[in-house]
Amino acid sequence: MKKYKDIVGDGGSNIVAQVEAQHARLKARLAAVRHVVAIVSGKGGVGKSSLTANLAAALAREGAAVGVLDADLNGPSIAKMLGVRGMKLRVTEAGVEPPVTAQGIRVMSMDLLLPSDDAPVTWDATSQVDSHVWRGNMEANALREFLADTAWGSLDFLLLDLPPGADRLSTLAGLVPSLSGTLVVTIPTDVSHLVVKKSITVARATGAPILGLVENMAELFQGTGGEALAAEFGIPFFGSVSFDPRLAVAADAGVPFVTEHADTPAGRALLEIAGRVRATLDAPSHSRPLTSSPLPSGERQEPDR
Amino acid sequence: MKKYKDIVGDGGSNIVAQVEAQHARLKARLAAVRHVVAIVSGKGGVGKSSLTANLAAALAREGAAVGVLDADLNGPSIAKMLGVRGMKLRVTEAGVEPPVTAQGIRVMSMDLLLPSDDAPVTWDATSQVDSHVWRGNMEANALREFLADTAWGSLDFLLLDLPPGADRLSTLAGLVPSLSGTLVVTIPTDVSHLVVKKSITVARATGAPILGLVENMAELFQGTGGEALAAEFGIPFFGSVSFDPRLAVAADAGVPFVTEHADTPAGRALLEIAGRVRATLDAPSHSRPLTSSPLPSGERQEPDR
Repeated sequence: MKKYKDIVGDGGSNIVAQVEAQHARLKARLAAVRHVVAIVSGKGGVGKSSLTANLAAALAREGAAVGVLDADLNGPSIAKMLGVRGMKLRVTEAGVEPPVTAQGIRVMSMDLLLPSDDAPVTWDATSQVDSHVWRGNMEANALREFLADTAWGSLDFLLLDLPPGADRLSTLAGLVPSLSGTLVVTIPTDVSHLVVKKSITVARATGAPILGLVENMAELFQGTGGEALAAEFGIPFFGSVSFDPRLAVAADAGVPFVTEHADTPAGRALLEIAGRVRATLDAPSHSRPLTSSPLPSGERQEPDR
Repeated sequence: MKKYKDIVGDGGSNIVAQVEAQHARLKARLAAVRHVVAIVSGKGGVGKSSLTANLAAALAREGAAVGVLDADLNGPSIAKMLGVRGMKLRVTEAGVEPPVTAQGIRVMSMDLLLPSDDAPVTWDATSQVDSHVWRGNMEANALREFLADTAWGSLDFLLLDLPPGADRLSTLAGLVPSLSGTLVVTIPTDVSHLVVKKSITVARATGAPILGLVENMAELFQGTGGEALAAEFGIPFFGSVSFDPRLAVAADAGVPFVTEHADTPAGRALLEIAGRVRATLDAPSHSRPLTSSPLPSGERQEPDR
């Protein structure tokens, strides 16, 4: 199996020594991004990546400069959903040039570094048996590299598609102190709400505002609605996206659903949700001048080892 | 937020010093379990937990002694799906007595230790910012405790419901050298197959046989079928479970679907899959006498720190 080190070459070796310089690059990269938004759920399979891909396309449609980072290292799917799977990465002086979709979205994902479909990401531990000792740390290092070493350029929105697991957002919030907010995704089942509630607690603890709650696969299940969940936690409800099998077809085909099916119930809902995300972030309390540094020198520097 | 240490009390403190004794307990516990089966997917939300709950009920229906360990610490849902949420754990000389469902299934889950719905599991790091350094290790420790300290008793089947993430199986295989096999779950979309393929590679690397592939939510999506995926990887195809919204209703209500809807297409498919799991494990090549030790002394002892 390919190890992360083999895949990224020099970028993966001597990782600790490079961290100082990486922090500076990360800071510079994020200073050129107006809004960094994490899409979280806790529960897997609720359509987090599909929502992320469609929000990116909806925002790009309105003329925004949009980037998407697939923060799911073990189950990356954004590159496929946005049609850039298999595209070559170009390394320039400015960093790794992310592939650009037909909609103009810049995409970075572990998927673009893996040699084949069935290659998992494994960490360079003595054996897989003790890989868990390193996993958390290596994942954080990989995400830091993706953020710092990708030539994102100037962006209005950088969307971060998080993996399932209520705990992953803490790691990311540590890497991105300038996180503008989180968007929480659920489906209308009690089982999903149970898991999503834990994510809301983690999202609150990051200090970044929870922008809103989105419900996917509405009408497919008969459980409690996302609107009630949002009300329970005092979070804005951003809307319900009906289940439409063409959402999965679009994801498999690599063309965002909103690009081809804007005038459907699910398409309209997605465009409306994108509008709410944009309006919330562009409200005076959220705006941040492009030139400001998101990481005041010496603040929230995270210990690395 | 509650820390894992607060939740488990003494069991969580001085964890390293207790490991030696825990290894011995783990060994003794697993010696009384005929078959340990991991249910994996890589992709979240493909109905892994629902399948686990229904397999457990189907096997128990046939008179087997069945236990289920919810190995998803961050998004536990098995306790709810099997109707034991909120039940008190009883600590006896033999260990922690797992709640028993109406179907006779013994269940252990992080969910039974959490004080409220919205409480996530957090690890006792200096700050959440560097929690990722400890996460992998603490998760492995928690799973080891669940396996070693639960009074499972004699079991025919212990089903382990794994969290999403292709990498989690390595950790578990390190803890359970006697793993009888893995069951891989997918849904008929290319995006799911892409992630599941990585899990198949990880599952193969554990050395435990892949028992079969199960397809959930058949007919809901129009993508490639699980049967083709199974054929591509030379894995037995165990069957397709049609999408039935009552599967989610049953999960929310805590009554296994097969208990109330055995005579439906999805119910029959689940019972058949359980029969295949049983037949595969009871085949001569898989059988292991109840009294044998699964951990030859000194073998595959994992370094702990």
